[in-house]
Amino acid sequence: MSDLTIWTYDWVPEMPRGFVRDLRLRWACEEAGLPYQVKSTPFKDKGTEHFEHQPFGQAPWLTDGDISIFESGAGLLHLARKSEKLMPRDPVGGAEALQWTIAALNSVEMVSVPWWFLEMSGAEDNGLTGWLESRLDHVERVLNERDWLAAGRFTVADLIMADVLRVEKVRAFGDRPATEAYVARMTERPAFRKAHADQMAHFAAAD
Amino acid sequence: MSDLTIWTYDWVPEMPRGFVRDLRLRWACEEAGLPYQVKSTPFKDKGTEHFEHQPFGQAPWLTDGDISIFESGAGLLHLARKSEKLMPRDPVGGAEALQWTIAALNSVEMVSVPWWFLEMSGAEDNGLTGWLESRLDHVERVLNERDWLAAGRFTVADLIMADVLRVEKVRAFGDRPATEAYVARMTERPAFRKAHADQMAHFAAAD
Repeated sequence: MSDLTIWTYDWVPEMPRGFVRDLRLRWACEEAGLPYQVKSTPFKDKGTEHFEHQPFGQAPWLTDGDISIFESGAGLLHLARKSEKLMPRDPVGGAEALQWTIAALNSVEMVSVPWWFLEMSGAEDNGLTGWLESRLDHVERVLNERDWLAAGRFTVADLIMADVLRVEKVRAFGDRPATEAYVARMTERPAFRKAHADQMAHFAAAD
Repeated sequence: MSDLTIWTYDWVPEMPRGFVRDLRLRWACEEAGLPYQVKSTPFKDKGTEHFEHQPFGQAPWLTDGDISIFESGAGLLHLARKSEKLMPRDPVGGAEALQWTIAALNSVEMVSVPWWFLEMSGAEDNGLTGWLESRLDHVERVLNERDWLAAGRFTVADLIMADVLRVEKVRAFGDRPATEAYVARMTERPAFRKAHADQMAHFAAAD
């Protein structure tokens, strides 16, 4: 049995299935060939223990021996320390992968998730649309020049950026062919497909 | 002369002064005692070189020998590798500092900055207010229990969280005394005060 455990909800409603962020950690473990197990925490009636591991009351968190780490982005960087497949060991390549990982979290998702939240809330005039378009345009320009964000090959930066960009609604406006092709390439990877199928099965099992 | 160079704008308007994110990197270098220099890039007429270093057309970025790294969060994690003062070397303490660094960027700032953006845009009914309040409440609960976010002492996680929370408008609603005290403690640190004064002087020199 592996020490590496991904904790996620025992069940979620239909809509977020396939997008709960345990998928990021599953995907990374699959890419890296790291053995892991998945355990459940109640979606309803979150207890004190949940908040001790994840102070915002969300999922996932990762345990690894006596380490417990929340935030999918932090979990990814933790896993990246274990596998060169996720992050190059040379300083320049490692810095490239690190900067693009944080860019996905703090430059793209920082706009795309609140934008999506406002859309879902039924906002008629989404005040974040222009900002999101600008961010997506910058990413499109970069992806137009190269296949991978960092170090000339797949890294954890592609994993997180593709997971941020694959939300259909986020890509629903504008014509960004390089981004479309990038998301298609990343989500065709066997490690993504396994992670996605496993998450869907995990939540379906609790129905 | 140090290899470590923080690149920021040559000038910015009054409003963002004291909040441009080169301050995070200056603050971290000051805390860690890492020698560094600051160089300027034009705020107006950003050139191709700017976008080569920072593909979203923002500042700062950090150079360190042949490494160039953008995203202030990534720059902080890069600096944290150089100094145990910023991130503990034991795996549990390191994971705590990492998770709270990402939490500041992807759980708190991911809501606070778009919220602030909508406020600045003159939104009458800011659709992100409830979400921001919930995030701030979770942080308040944690800060009510302890003085530091990670490892029982100052780390880079406190630096980034305090920088996110010190935006006055973000803390203007609700009564969160632990958060207020935390921000006051962090911004009283000599390293913050020096970083802040240096940034103000840098932009004032270009007026």
